[in-house]
Amino acid sequence: MIDVCLLGTGGMMPLPYRWLTSLMVRYRGTGILIDCGEGTQVALRKKGWSPKPIDIICITHFHADHISGLPGMLLTMGNAEKTSPLTIIGPKGLEKVVRSLRVIAPELPFTIKCVEIEENEQSFCFDGFKINAFKVNHNVTCYGYSFSVDRAGKFEKEKAEALNIPLKFWSRLQKGETLTEDEKTYTPDMVMGPPRKGLKLTYCTDTRPTAGIEENAKDSDLLILEGMYGDKEDEQKARGYKHMTMAEAAAIAKKAEPKELWLTHYSPSVNRPEEFGDMVRGIFKNSVMAKDGRSTELRFADE
Amino acid sequence: MIDVCLLGTGGMMPLPYRWLTSLMVRYRGTGILIDCGEGTQVALRKKGWSPKPIDIICITHFHADHISGLPGMLLTMGNAEKTSPLTIIGPKGLEKVVRSLRVIAPELPFTIKCVEIEENEQSFCFDGFKINAFKVNHNVTCYGYSFSVDRAGKFEKEKAEALNIPLKFWSRLQKGETLTEDEKTYTPDMVMGPPRKGLKLTYCTDTRPTAGIEENAKDSDLLILEGMYGDKEDEQKARGYKHMTMAEAAAIAKKAEPKELWLTHYSPSVNRPEEFGDMVRGIFKNSVMAKDGRSTELRFADE
Repeated sequence: MIDVCLLGTGGMMPLPYRWLTSLMVRYRGTGILIDCGEGTQVALRKKGWSPKPIDIICITHFHADHISGLPGMLLTMGNAEKTSPLTIIGPKGLEKVVRSLRVIAPELPFTIKCVEIEENEQSFCFDGFKINAFKVNHNVTCYGYSFSVDRAGKFEKEKAEALNIPLKFWSRLQKGETLTEDEKTYTPDMVMGPPRKGLKLTYCTDTRPTAGIEENAKDSDLLILEGMYGDKEDEQKARGYKHMTMAEAAAIAKKAEPKELWLTHYSPSVNRPEEFGDMVRGIFKNSVMAKDGRSTELRFADE
Repeated sequence: MIDVCLLGTGGMMPLPYRWLTSLMVRYRGTGILIDCGEGTQVALRKKGWSPKPIDIICITHFHADHISGLPGMLLTMGNAEKTSPLTIIGPKGLEKVVRSLRVIAPELPFTIKCVEIEENEQSFCFDGFKINAFKVNHNVTCYGYSFSVDRAGKFEKEKAEALNIPLKFWSRLQKGETLTEDEKTYTPDMVMGPPRKGLKLTYCTDTRPTAGIEENAKDSDLLILEGMYGDKEDEQKARGYKHMTMAEAAAIAKKAEPKELWLTHYSPSVNRPEEFGDMVRGIFKNSVMAKDGRSTELRFADE
């Protein structure tokens, strides 16, 4: 099960009634935060989630509304007695930006490892899940992120019995080990069915529509995209500032067919995103005009 | 008249129900902000005051809760189309800290002049008002600030008539000019009464009690001090972290006799500052356990 919370839904600047866009994901004790704008630590606290288990922070790009809350968040994680290492993933230049911002957060009780994305698309494997960063099209280098959990096939007892595989090896084969005894080798595929559908979450803001977003959005249980503007007459503004309109985001979802689409990163000029809800759902039915703090649990199909 | 708003009253970290401590002062079209923590721009917006006329930002010290909101505030001032120069006053090292934080706010439509305080006590004169910075006693270099407006004496028509001062000079003498005509020199003191009581506001957080605070607090119409802790058993913590308890702040006010004392910069552990209100008012009667957004207008005695 993956816990997901869209901590804020605002773009450009934090507002009294709307935090800056940021996503927190929790999976098996690991916390992953995507972006950390001014006030993200407050939104997290309001949600009641602890900053302590944040192990990975993914930064989409270096515009202030996506990273200005980093020094405060780091200090608050330290105050929460976090001592385990933190990995920060982001565009080239990340190390310098983090070092600069830490001028006001120099002492922390945990180490920070900065990982700069080198490729247009690059995967980072962790224990039990994968983060895939893919470059998008903004006016500075910017990445979207997919978070995915693979799921092995079912253990097939009949196969194991038919092949006379010793009972003592069953559990280890299920865990993916390859074993040898009496010159016989036992591999997981001997007892496991075909891999089952895993879980996938794709998150992307601050970009024009791209083929890469569509590609990464495929098979997503949840797709979170920016819907900076709703009005048709703001389309040109979206093109100029390299953002996406709500209709453009919904059009990506229509092609990629995720289970659900959440829109976020609304312009401060968009007072009531829900006003555009019908228009968006007319393009892609399972669309949600997300509000701050919206959360869900992603579960395997038969869980 | 001076508009004063205590935008936030929290110390250490922003909370869902309490912004970080910051003060905004407006005087004759000039805006002065003291400290700018994470979320200060949101508190300002909530108050309904524009960030555009902020001309001076005074930073008490470089702990994150007092400056982490600076890059976001600068960008929001830029978005509000501010083009007039900004002066930032703060401890030595200010220029470096501001430059570092601006890694995420490199382009602004106004210039920034950093003024580093060199002395233990130093005055900065502006058009019509004075800011006095005085070093306090925290675990890093930290300053309190007094903001004061002098007030000339009353124009005394009888004196001007008795001295046969030409009518055409009366207004210019009132404005402080010295004039000469027919080998006679006319000076303002010839027509003006003794200087009247001006306005003074003193602000100080993050310090142990010091004689300098008491000295600067004298004659203040409003004294704003930190009251980090209320419980008696937190006194030792206050000494250790170099903060002030509410009782210590009230004791300073008792000696300095400002017209009013507001407490601020409450520890996140202080849920309801008003619980300590009676204790504080028992020490200094005109004390207010301030809440976010508390504002007032300071006026000359007979205005």
